[in-house]
Amino acid sequence: MLASPLDYSQLVERALRRVVHDALEVVALQGLPGRHHLYITFRTDHPGVVLDDGLRARYPAEMTVVLQHEFWGLEVAPDRFEVTLSFGGQPQRVEVPFAAIRVFADPSVEFGLQFTVPDGPGEGAGAGAGEKQAGPPASVAQLP
Amino acid sequence: MLASPLDYSQLVERALRRVVHDALEVVALQGLPGRHHLYITFRTDHPGVVLDDGLRARYPAEMTVVLQHEFWGLEVAPDRFEVTLSFGGQPQRVEVPFAAIRVFADPSVEFGLQFTVPDGPGEGAGAGAGEKQAGPPASVAQLP
Repeated sequence: MLASPLDYSQLVERALRRVVHDALEVVALQGLPGRHHLYITFRTDHPGVVLDDGLRARYPAEMTVVLQHEFWGLEVAPDRFEVTLSFGGQPQRVEVPFAAIRVFADPSVEFGLQFTVPDGPGEGAGAGAGEKQAGPPASVAQLP
Repeated sequence: MLASPLDYSQLVERALRRVVHDALEVVALQGLPGRHHLYITFRTDHPGVVLDDGLRARYPAEMTVVLQHEFWGLEVAPDRFEVTLSFGGQPQRVEVPFAAIRVFADPSVEFGLQFTVPDGPGEGAGAGAGEKQAGPPASVAQLP
């Protein structure tokens, strides 16, 4: 729901989440073209995130996954994606609603998107590989 | 179609056109909230634009319409909107595909979006109330 009927920052943020969906759909269908690789930082405590118990304990608030060499079975639905990744040599399936994503980046072309995600109920100290930070509303950023 | 499978500027532009759709849908359902008012600049020579012959002759390339006081019957479809506006006291129906829109602005909150639209076949000298300019890829701008 929008806070105000014409809250453009929310409309833009919602629209830009579509870019993540569309990019992942390309990768699901065609694989990663050229040197593209994707960093996705998401709130692990967001409703709908499906994660192995061990990973959840290790990353109670946020984690970053990388789609580059070791990922399998990427499936993209309108509101979420799922993929199998290797964690310490162990394949693990993760399922992430697009609404849980805080950062999407493709360093190969210096493209990045940052989203606001409300803190979940299980807000704790831990964070994944990504830096934890309070982001501005959705922004299209040039990465350094 | 995307030029390259992961062309983010095209993915972002496509996603941001969704903001125009969503904002117009709010206005169609609830009217213009508060002091909001909308300027929409579109290519009149884009396929799918439906316009009175007189207006088309006057604005062969581009025109800007304002949704503020005098507009009626705004209808929003997934790929286009139509609305009745007053031109010199005469009501005229116009129908505009979202793909034809070059600029969308709501000056009340200093919000603006600019899109790239390929020049149509009937490219001429005339332009509507909006300035004609070669825009960068879709951008979210703070208006002056």
